[in-house]
Amino acid sequence: VDPDARAALLVDLFERAPLGEHLGMALGFDDRLRSVVDLPPGRHLHHPLHQVHGGVFGTLVDTAAWFAAAIHYDTWIATVEYHTRLLEPVADEALVAVGRLIRAGNRLATASAEIHTASGDLVAIGTGSFAVTDVPIA
Amino acid sequence: VDPDARAALLVDLFERAPLGEHLGMALGFDDRLRSVVDLPPGRHLHHPLHQVHGGVFGTLVDTAAWFAAAIHYDTWIATVEYHTRLLEPVADEALVAVGRLIRAGNRLATASAEIHTASGDLVAIGTGSFAVTDVPIA
Amino acid sequence: VDPDARAALLVDLFERAPLGEHLGMALGFDDRLRSVVDLPPGRHLHHPLHQVHGGVFGTLVDTAAWFAAAIHYDTWIATVEYHTRLLEPVADEALVAVGRLIRAGNRLATASAEIHTASGDLVAIGTGSFAVTDVPIA
Amino acid sequence: VDPDARAALLVDLFERAPLGEHLGMALGFDDRLRSVVDLPPGRHLHHPLHQVHGGVFGTLVDTAAWFAAAIHYDTWIATVEYHTRLLEPVADEALVAVGRLIRAGNRLATASAEIHTASGDLVAIGTGSFAVTDVPIA
Repeated sequence: VDPDARAALLVDLFERAPLGEHLGMALGFDDRLRSVVDLPPGRHLHHPLHQVHGGVFGTLVDTAAWFAAAIHYDTWIATVEYHTRLLEPVADEALVAVGRLIRAGNRLATASAEIHTASGDLVAIGTGSFAVTDVPIA
Repeated sequence: VDPDARAALLVDLFERAPLGEHLGMALGFDDRLRSVVDLPPGRHLHHPLHQVHGGVFGTLVDTAAWFAAAIHYDTWIATVEYHTRLLEPVADEALVAVGRLIRAGNRLATASAEIHTASGDLVAIGTGSFAVTDVPIA
Repeated sequence: VDPDARAALLVDLFERAPLGEHLGMALGFDDRLRSVVDLPPGRHLHHPLHQVHGGVFGTLVDTAAWFAAAIHYDTWIATVEYHTRLLEPVADEALVAVGRLIRAGNRLATASAEIHTASGDLVAIGTGSFAVTDVPIA
Repeated sequence: VDPDARAALLVDLFERAPLGEHLGMALGFDDRLRSVVDLPPGRHLHHPLHQVHGGVFGTLVDTAAWFAAAIHYDTWIATVEYHTRLLEPVADEALVAVGRLIRAGNRLATASAEIHTASGDLVAIGTGSFAVTDVPIA
């Protein structure tokens, strides 16, 4: 399958994802088929001390790693588990999560994500594994 | 410190948490000081195939484990990392995450979370570690 | 299949595991089919500061969780990933790792492990996921 | 402190580590201060199906990540937790684990490890966090 066509299909899929829209995320792919998830700052992302909630970083890890893996399959993949490390607190900066495929197996995919602020600080990392299903993605 | 007073303080803190409100979570504690995080169903929690997004489960793990640990400290704790396992897909059921302290160290706390549907199925689990800071929590 | 027969088969399998023998581990199952891995103390388990090496705790997590899951399958399962948390340092005490099944799916199993010292302190925990294969276990 | 002197000190420390010797590991550092842990093949590393045991990969992750972080501190660091992903089974090939610092904080360090076979296949990855202590390392 043409990678550009698959990227367009996944971006379209993403834009119909309610949680992504609810939080304000936008998806793209770079020319090495890495996923790029942008998240503008917003008070709705905060925990009580008004920094970005750990759950937001986890959501970015799951999302970026999922799309970095999904672009290599014709069928839907299901998140099995993911791990999120918070390196620095962030308050009101835009975030960019870049997902990268580690391994695309027949039954399981593995991918990682790095999250930087718009100003370039590495603020969180994570990895996840994803089970390949028989459900067509289109 | 009186546990009931601390629980009330943390519930008040939680209710000022923008992300919790944005997603629809509510916090309580049971009589063993376990955190109980309720999340009613909603389309805004879904990924593109209209099941609950993995990031929602991670947010519940981070939140439930954080509060189960925080109630044992006078000062703020900061999420270091957390791990989330998705066991079963969920579409439109209410979720309940219960957080439990594993260990309250001087510098680090460890806690776990189990997430059930309202009908009693175990659908996700996770664990996290939290760094104890000097910032007063009140 | 009779659980006792399966337990006997897995104990026999374990006793032919070179790493287990090299480190000194012994395997059993309790009456709830939880795995019980015993490891006597020994200098060969130490890191340079003469406490038990983190890799030993990870090996116990992988082993105990693997057997707690494997007893529920007719075929071999393969470790996908596991996470290990070290709660307390240990020097020269016997360790007991108890593995517990979390979920036995058709394609993936999830299990956890808790590691105590002989004197009863909880010193490490972990969880893992395991892919179900077609390879017969006998 | 001179990095070469610190590397020499850590290699000396490693060579007094009983577990490392028991398994057959050797430590070095490359010119970017990444740790390099070599492990020749051996039957003693195997699980019952005669492939390298998951615990060996975890031990390599913990060891490589620990040394990649430790070289940036004057004092001892303690493993808090680590996560290990097994990507491909390995039977009788030499393994090389390369550890890389992710972040050296005042209280916590984060590092990752990649494990390749001698023939160049990526067979496992992992990450860990380490608490900075007051205990001098020398």
